[in-house]
Amino acid sequence: MLLKKLREEVLEANLELVKRGLVLYTFGNASGVDREQGLVVIKPSGVDYDVLKPEQMVVTDLHGKIVEGEFKPSSDLDTHTLLYREFLDIGAVVHTHSEFATSFAQAGLPIPAFGTTHADYFYGPVPVTKVLTDEAIGGRYVHETGLAIVERFRQGGIDPMAVPACLVNGHAPFAWGRNAHDAAHNAVVLEAVARMAYRTVSLKANADEVSQALLDRHYFRKHGAKATYGQ
Amino acid sequence: MLLKKLREEVLEANLELVKRGLVLYTFGNASGVDREQGLVVIKPSGVDYDVLKPEQMVVTDLHGKIVEGEFKPSSDLDTHTLLYREFLDIGAVVHTHSEFATSFAQAGLPIPAFGTTHADYFYGPVPVTKVLTDEAIGGRYVHETGLAIVERFRQGGIDPMAVPACLVNGHAPFAWGRNAHDAAHNAVVLEAVARMAYRTVSLKANADEVSQALLDRHYFRKHGAKATYGQ
Amino acid sequence: MLLKKLREEVLEANLELVKRGLVLYTFGNASGVDREQGLVVIKPSGVDYDVLKPEQMVVTDLHGKIVEGEFKPSSDLDTHTLLYREFLDIGAVVHTHSEFATSFAQAGLPIPAFGTTHADYFYGPVPVTKVLTDEAIGGRYVHETGLAIVERFRQGGIDPMAVPACLVNGHAPFAWGRNAHDAAHNAVVLEAVARMAYRTVSLKANADEVSQALLDRHYFRKHGAKATYGQ
Amino acid sequence: MLLKKLREEVLEANLELVKRGLVLYTFGNASGVDREQGLVVIKPSGVDYDVLKPEQMVVTDLHGKIVEGEFKPSSDLDTHTLLYREFLDIGAVVHTHSEFATSFAQAGLPIPAFGTTHADYFYGPVPVTKVLTDEAIGGRYVHETGLAIVERFRQGGIDPMAVPACLVNGHAPFAWGRNAHDAAHNAVVLEAVARMAYRTVSLKANADEVSQALLDRHYFRKHGAKATYGQ
Repeated sequence: MLLKKLREEVLEANLELVKRGLVLYTFGNASGVDREQGLVVIKPSGVDYDVLKPEQMVVTDLHGKIVEGEFKPSSDLDTHTLLYREFLDIGAVVHTHSEFATSFAQAGLPIPAFGTTHADYFYGPVPVTKVLTDEAIGGRYVHETGLAIVERFRQGGIDPMAVPACLVNGHAPFAWGRNAHDAAHNAVVLEAVARMAYRTVSLKANADEVSQALLDRHYFRKHGAKATYGQ
Repeated sequence: MLLKKLREEVLEANLELVKRGLVLYTFGNASGVDREQGLVVIKPSGVDYDVLKPEQMVVTDLHGKIVEGEFKPSSDLDTHTLLYREFLDIGAVVHTHSEFATSFAQAGLPIPAFGTTHADYFYGPVPVTKVLTDEAIGGRYVHETGLAIVERFRQGGIDPMAVPACLVNGHAPFAWGRNAHDAAHNAVVLEAVARMAYRTVSLKANADEVSQALLDRHYFRKHGAKATYGQ
Repeated sequence: MLLKKLREEVLEANLELVKRGLVLYTFGNASGVDREQGLVVIKPSGVDYDVLKPEQMVVTDLHGKIVEGEFKPSSDLDTHTLLYREFLDIGAVVHTHSEFATSFAQAGLPIPAFGTTHADYFYGPVPVTKVLTDEAIGGRYVHETGLAIVERFRQGGIDPMAVPACLVNGHAPFAWGRNAHDAAHNAVVLEAVARMAYRTVSLKANADEVSQALLDRHYFRKHGAKATYGQ
Repeated sequence: MLLKKLREEVLEANLELVKRGLVLYTFGNASGVDREQGLVVIKPSGVDYDVLKPEQMVVTDLHGKIVEGEFKPSSDLDTHTLLYREFLDIGAVVHTHSEFATSFAQAGLPIPAFGTTHADYFYGPVPVTKVLTDEAIGGRYVHETGLAIVERFRQGGIDPMAVPACLVNGHAPFAWGRNAHDAAHNAVVLEAVARMAYRTVSLKANADEVSQALLDRHYFRKHGAKATYGQ
């Protein structure tokens, strides 16, 4: 069986989403990539989380061709593989319909950087894609979803490692990270940050984002060569 | 004992509503129909969920006449039987007072199709009935509740299999499906969709619904002859 | 030991409040009355719920004089006893600081009868008292709290058995019932109804209350000589 | 090992924050001070709560110099030690990013004293600091955070023992108390009070705070020489 360890990590990331209340039924999916072998491990489509096993994970190449697995891969596979091809430093992708992040996506609004919780994980607002055209939706829709994310980061000059999540307009969030654990962790924090951003604008419609200085201070406390957080 | 398997499925659907936090105390009820025999199995009225047993389910004909059972049926029975008589493809009906769907019903507002979570299950907004007249309320009230649902679908040209739920104005939601499992599942997703619609309009009062193209793409990914989701 | 059964019922009502998430730490209290003996059983002040025992309940007369018990009674005792002296059909009183009902109390707003969930339990809006005067607060404050409730019902011509709860302005809800079980049940439903009323006005600021016809239909389905709900 | 009992109390306070849903992952931290020895016990940085042990707590002096411990202390240490140096009656400090209190902090708004739940614990609004300057953020940021809190209390003439919490603008709350148990308790109640304040202003934008008389009555019922609450 190919990629035993990665399968386990991807399964664990999927289960972390359940444990943290980010998914309902079989919604949501996580995947991981082995860059050396050019292979992706992803959750099968529509299988209950409580019976998921590592060997049920589906292995594909970077263009979504199935290499190993009896099950059909997640229906969002083409978004995952596109992100792996375009964002070369990411090692895992997570997609959920978590309540508050999805509500920002449905409203077509980015999640502003209102506080230090946000700044600890996301170096700036979490962006939202443009609305997909009818042509894109009618065509290679799942692929186009990935393109919309990549385009949003390219045009906005946003580093996907500094802002490891994006809201797909009218749909829901995608998050990523260096590995499956980080990607799931980022998806969980994204939801927490979205909850608090929702409360913040409810309390004060024109609330200010944090200053660049505070964004720098908190983000670089946890990331980069000079990080000081943790052991 | 009549309809052993259907009793178990209906009980399981009732318990799923409890497990997912959709009902408080003895609120809510689920039923199922055996089309061949023309019999309905429904939860008894006001019995605690944690002591409910399959043999306590009440069996009636399609006009609510009790055929088997020691207990009184749910007080909403006449709405269930009317829906079975009018919506010929449905196999089960679920009624809850789940928090967010009920709040839309109380506000007299439909649940707009704001995102793909909605589109995966409901092919358009979840409609709300007209306000019942005093005559209807004073007369065969529970029957009239069912009539209001059917009228809303007929007048709106809505296919009950494509939009498997309706909000009763000033009351709460009814959901249905091909079988008891599906009906409960739809009621659970309806509540999740209502939560996110509530958050969406809080964030942006005039938020746009998804395009017809996105509605088509997501709905038909999970439903109909060309469905690709799941195994 | 006096009133063994009533102690157990009062303890159970207190624990029901914890189980349903209505109280934090030692907030909240329930009491019951034995009308024949003219005795009240009430939770002791500030004792952790998870170590509460029936024998720790405090027994007082209808004016709050301690008859049996090693512990100090709940600091809200004088509100409870006043309600027993003035509302002669009630058998138990429950006080919580449950989140949504308390928020209406803090806003100085009644809970409108927006739907059938409300109508099933409360035959009209749940009223809110006037703001207590500085004199009342500086004087027999806990007694005055009870007076404000009674005054609100008397002046509004509200039957305390038909609307078994009141919000104390700037404070929190009191609920009551024929016995301890009912009073706790009413407090739990009050919170559910408050949650949905909050959501309803968020969705539609000027939402309509249910019609008198619907209020009648639902309330009398569960209460009075012609009740049909349950077994 | 130094300060065995204090380590256990600080650990217990940290775990109370987890139990009450105030922290996500390794967010949040609690510390305690031994005034006689001039030593502070604080949670290590970024260690999972479910493996935390008393011996992993870090001991520092009142200026944050490590005296005992293999782990790095919480990154917020300098705020804790400053508060101990400036607020001489406090025995413990707790910092969380709890959802509603943090949302008020992100909106730059104090938590008004809308009801008796608030008045039972906080003798007036819970204040919010000024926005930190870029110089403060770029300099001794964690120390400056503590300074902003102290300055807010000094300039507002607020007694830190009467209002045992402060919101740091754009960041999150700090709470404190006579000992670790009290500080955690205050942080938990702060979040409950913030939730209800959020609901209150949602229901009524210009809601009134409680009167000075009610604030006095409730606060002094639980605090000071004449307290009557509890056993």
